Amino acid sequence: MSVTVVGSIALDTVESPSGRNAEGLGGAAVYFALAAAHFTRVHLVGVVGEDFPQEHVRLLESKNIDLTGLEYATGKTFRWTGRYHDDVNERDTLDTQLNVFEQFHPKLPEAARAAEYLFLGNIHPALQREVLEQSHHRFAGLDTMNLWIATTPDDLRQVLRPVDTLIINDAEAKQLTEVNDLRQAARQIQTLGPRLVVIKKGEHGCMLFGAEEQIFAIPALPLETVIDPTGAGDSFAGGFMGYLAKEGNTEFDTLKRAVVYGSALASCTCEAFGPNRLAQVDAAEVEARYQAFRSLTQF
Amino acid sequence: MSVTVVGSIALDTVESPSGRNAEGLGGAAVYFALAAAHFTRVHLVGVVGEDFPQEHVRLLESKNIDLTGLEYATGKTFRWTGRYHDDVNERDTLDTQLNVFEQFHPKLPEAARAAEYLFLGNIHPALQREVLEQSHHRFAGLDTMNLWIATTPDDLRQVLRPVDTLIINDAEAKQLTEVNDLRQAARQIQTLGPRLVVIKKGEHGCMLFGAEEQIFAIPALPLETVIDPTGAGDSFAGGFMGYLAKEGNTEFDTLKRAVVYGSALASCTCEAFGPNRLAQVDAAEVEARYQAFRSLTQF
Repeated sequence: MSVTVVGSIALDTVESPSGRNAEGLGGAAVYFALAAAHFTRVHLVGVVGEDFPQEHVRLLESKNIDLTGLEYATGKTFRWTGRYHDDVNERDTLDTQLNVFEQFHPKLPEAARAAEYLFLGNIHPALQREVLEQSHHRFAGLDTMNLWIATTPDDLRQVLRPVDTLIINDAEAKQLTEVNDLRQAARQIQTLGPRLVVIKKGEHGCMLFGAEEQIFAIPALPLETVIDPTGAGDSFAGGFMGYLAKEGNTEFDTLKRAVVYGSALASCTCEAFGPNRLAQVDAAEVEARYQAFRSLTQF
Repeated sequence: MSVTVVGSIALDTVESPSGRNAEGLGGAAVYFALAAAHFTRVHLVGVVGEDFPQEHVRLLESKNIDLTGLEYATGKTFRWTGRYHDDVNERDTLDTQLNVFEQFHPKLPEAARAAEYLFLGNIHPALQREVLEQSHHRFAGLDTMNLWIATTPDDLRQVLRPVDTLIINDAEAKQLTEVNDLRQAARQIQTLGPRLVVIKKGEHGCMLFGAEEQIFAIPALPLETVIDPTGAGDSFAGGFMGYLAKEGNTEFDTLKRAVVYGSALASCTCEAFGPNRLAQVDAAEVEARYQAFRSLTQF
């Protein structure tokens, strides 16, 4: 089964203790698509400007990614600039230029509408709802951020109601529910719609909350070197949704393995600037990383 | 095989969002002993004052704990008072009265000297060395704290050299090594002596670093209610060392299971004030909690 993802496509400038990467390929939908494409066909829906380098298009096309839904708009591509601290778990956003992304209204081509799995990347919840209404998915995942939780809570609640899983980080889960305890926060989110809640905790790993009190937790893989964590969360979501689409079911055991594959791809992303490492890993390396998680956690 | 533990025995006054527990049984050596006694015979070495309630002595004696090394000194028992925040991962120490603990020089009775496993609770590193010199152990673990890392670094390095495992929390590991990354911090600690390093991360679980790059990590069990986390770290250490002593080996697979049993007992401690729950759980409940960790983490 295939996955559709809707979200940002960007040119990112990142400074980290390891160096600087100027105007590299980025955006949540890009990381998601490259990760999910390890498992299944991906339909990418997003917008770029006239300045978007063709080499990035060629890279995405060379993977298992359908770009029929890639819109070219007049103007410049979305740009983001950030700087990581010596502790790479912290970063500052230095600059955001929405450019063509500001007027983006996602239009799903037929193949994207027909995909069984849909992921709504972090965009305005009203746009996420427009996408939901165009899609014939049977399983939908959603990401959001502090901005929408604070400024458009009603729109966010409307789009949360019909989705199957929310994938957010711990700070966002606490902000959304005003509850500090993640287990209680997840339960509260489940009353808002999503029957599955995935909470990403960065260097502390990830938790999956299912129906009937089911919980799965996994630590992060301790990495030798973290070069650039940008897109790690989106790579997680891509690996998670891509694996589910490949397996074609959402049994709890499948969901657990999806969390591990998502974590495996997220860890790859951290090891180079932008999606450079994520785009290069082959199936054997992904499998080796999955086994590294087994060795780290199984007793 | 049996375990000897040397450390504090206290009367704790704790305020948490769940209530207040005045002058209850506490102290690192008490939590350690009650946890370790689930697995093996424990020799408790510590000091109390004339005011130490006999009911606490009877409780400890009713478990698998040898109190030959319990010294009664003239004066009052060590007292600690603390208050937990609404987020029970944070607390303030309101008062510490060392009392008889101030002049404590541990003297190990013959059975305590002969124990194969030794745990040096968090006391002045010079006293920890006095204990090491009296003991015929074949495996020694050590705990310490920010105070000794900051004020007696040379004494601490001396006692670290001959021990087998250091069990500390993440903040202490970073403080000791001046390294933010826990994997790098653990490696640096290994160059100071301990071939095994256990780093406790509170609500984020625990990591075990062995020889030859071996790493094991486990998340914390998400608890319905945390009443009082005092002594959770000491209960972890007790469960860890007690299980090792019971098994009689320190193979990496045994160490992994010891981490899980330690985490299981730590989670019990959090569910009531003081060691009330820890002292009550039976073997079936400990095993059920071990299985809860399996269900949480195995895929």
